Amino acid sequence: MAKRSVLTRQADDFPRWYQDVLDKAQLADNGPVRGTMVIRPYGYSIWERLQAEVDLRIKACGAENAYFPLFIPESYLKREAEHVEGFSPELAVVTVAGGKELAEPVVVRPTSETVIGEFMAKWTQSYRDLPLLLNQWANVVRWELRPRLFLRTSEFLWQEGHTAHATREEAQAYTVRILHDVYEDFMVNVLALPVVVGLKTARERFAGATNTFTCEAMMGDGKALQMGTSHELGQNFARAFGIEFLDETGQQQTAWTTSWGVSTRMVGGLIMGHGDDDGLRVPPRLAPTQVVVLAVRDEGDVIARCAALADDLRAAGVRVQLDDRAEVSLGRRATDWELKGVPVRVELGPRDLAEGNATLVRRIVREDAEGGRADAKTPVALAGIVDAVTGELAAQQELLLAQRKQGSPVPL
Amino acid sequence: MAKRSVLTRQADDFPRWYQDVLDKAQLADNGPVRGTMVIRPYGYSIWERLQAEVDLRIKACGAENAYFPLFIPESYLKREAEHVEGFSPELAVVTVAGGKELAEPVVVRPTSETVIGEFMAKWTQSYRDLPLLLNQWANVVRWELRPRLFLRTSEFLWQEGHTAHATREEAQAYTVRILHDVYEDFMVNVLALPVVVGLKTARERFAGATNTFTCEAMMGDGKALQMGTSHELGQNFARAFGIEFLDETGQQQTAWTTSWGVSTRMVGGLIMGHGDDDGLRVPPRLAPTQVVVLAVRDEGDVIARCAALADDLRAAGVRVQLDDRAEVSLGRRATDWELKGVPVRVELGPRDLAEGNATLVRRIVREDAEGGRADAKTPVALAGIVDAVTGELAAQQELLLAQRKQGSPVPL
Repeated sequence: MAKRSVLTRQADDFPRWYQDVLDKAQLADNGPVRGTMVIRPYGYSIWERLQAEVDLRIKACGAENAYFPLFIPESYLKREAEHVEGFSPELAVVTVAGGKELAEPVVVRPTSETVIGEFMAKWTQSYRDLPLLLNQWANVVRWELRPRLFLRTSEFLWQEGHTAHATREEAQAYTVRILHDVYEDFMVNVLALPVVVGLKTARERFAGATNTFTCEAMMGDGKALQMGTSHELGQNFARAFGIEFLDETGQQQTAWTTSWGVSTRMVGGLIMGHGDDDGLRVPPRLAPTQVVVLAVRDEGDVIARCAALADDLRAAGVRVQLDDRAEVSLGRRATDWELKGVPVRVELGPRDLAEGNATLVRRIVREDAEGGRADAKTPVALAGIVDAVTGELAAQQELLLAQRKQGSPVPL
Repeated sequence: MAKRSVLTRQADDFPRWYQDVLDKAQLADNGPVRGTMVIRPYGYSIWERLQAEVDLRIKACGAENAYFPLFIPESYLKREAEHVEGFSPELAVVTVAGGKELAEPVVVRPTSETVIGEFMAKWTQSYRDLPLLLNQWANVVRWELRPRLFLRTSEFLWQEGHTAHATREEAQAYTVRILHDVYEDFMVNVLALPVVVGLKTARERFAGATNTFTCEAMMGDGKALQMGTSHELGQNFARAFGIEFLDETGQQQTAWTTSWGVSTRMVGGLIMGHGDDDGLRVPPRLAPTQVVVLAVRDEGDVIARCAALADDLRAAGVRVQLDDRAEVSLGRRATDWELKGVPVRVELGPRDLAEGNATLVRRIVREDAEGGRADAKTPVALAGIVDAVTGELAAQQELLLAQRKQGSPVPL
């Protein structure tokens, strides 16, 4: 039974479908300055969850967060010729501040690489100061002529890690550790997107890097999206910024550095990697709202029972939201939650309560032989519903990854 | 017994003491562009804890986080005359981007008020869309000629909340709720700084506000520091940005708005409010590191026992760090942890182990009759040490607030 979709179909026009999802699921809007982005509360709550999960893994690798300034003297970017060549056409430059023309213009950071390099040099004296493991969560600006929300915007949010090590081997090992233990682990086990982890060719490499590793995931249109990179920088940056240390024998040595980053582009990858013609599908481990408890109508104690169920689920550690907007039709609310990709919907009405049941509706479903969605709805006994819901969340997380691995998502 | 301090004494030169603490406790450095700030890992970990605690309280008041662009068209700031007058000399302006002069310069946000106002108007149609409760964590720029790290910098980190309500009463109530349930509660119960909560005079009020409430705390030099503000904006901003809604009777109405914010200045307040001649003192509930377990020397199983104790404390929910740098003298390490203001130090050496004890050292101490610190060190039985430490953390939290309330901190 075909239902009318509020979105352009993926098969008809994938880029327009993507734009429709951003609008209808209230993820993001264009900002007033071309190429900038307003991340709406639901979109931002997804970013907050992404950030928390990545941050946890970065800290587990021993790196510490710090914050470096938005503004960089123009001269800094000229120190490392190869570096500035890559960025120059993308820079935004402040020439007026405090009511007058600046003697030296300042650049809005396209990355904090140069200023972090300078401070790493200052903080590194002896081998005892190494490894120096820094990370920064911040906004950066790279002027973009053909922006697409989340995928390519003039301003975006990201983390950039920068580390300095005493030996080439340590720096290599750390580059690969971030790649696997932070990025790949997060993308596969939280985002439920299988990624191809590989080494970039010399031509595609980050300027100044000796090796660039990348994680790429397959999107719903069959194209690959670069989701994160980890760079081994050899001694190139350390030489440019003077990151040197006295080794155990009292010799002055040049450090070996790495850098690595992921950005709000991952939200774009989530949308395009898992979305279908009904909207977003968010893997349960990531989802800011894992379960919505929906009061079918305001009759008897339906709303009170829904609120109590939401409390029970919350107590069991589930991220849950109560939808008691009985004045809005059930169909419209169901469509909204499907658009937002909330993994599990628990619908509760007077009839369900009379039968001691709730209706559990799955966002991520197995396809049946006809490509239909036979298992989308199931009645579940209220007595065991908390366990049923937590079990369902775990099952959907696995199912989504398995579907993506097969490259055979739910038929659209 | 006087010990030699690594800091300028507060009584001798308070501003220099402040600068010394920033340096020696590795909290922050000056950035390369005048007025900008590098927040070092330890300083940033304090900010992360502040942010997490404030964010929790903001969410409990129902506001949702979102993200609005760094760049604002210059024309936006001219819409609200009173508004731009206050900010104009502080603005940083981007005139060149993407390799060429911009047709319309863009301003680096001094606040996101104007762009958030514009989107609030877009998202508000009917009374059902209200209240609209938004918050943003971001960097903002106000060019500063006499910068002081954390207190007054050209770029700073903050949160700005913006809400729209259907009635004046609701807007008033929300302004006051944020003031008390978020700011005052956090400052008193986490930061352990008693604050004076009050209404600003018409002259000191935020441009465009009908009422500005403020939380001010007393610093160690006897001066008050404004730690946060909550503004009732009446219908002034809603009129300027067209935030209107259809009420229940189908009449077009103008909304009532609020705005409120706290910033990295709170880190400055923490330093100046609690610091003493030995450095920072961080209240246990805030402290990124509540306890450091310090191996006195590397002998027998001392380090292994210290690591095991750190694990036990971590399992009990304590934020703990292990200091096993036996090659650095005990005195120097003790001085470092005092500078950083870690509330509890647990020192463990071969003699302590033989006696079944550890030495518990307090950063926040009661003064004895002579103004000394008689209770700074106590032997504690290893058998009950986890309880002793958690009890000590709770006691120090209370003690610090009580001392600040009396206005009689530990003699310096």
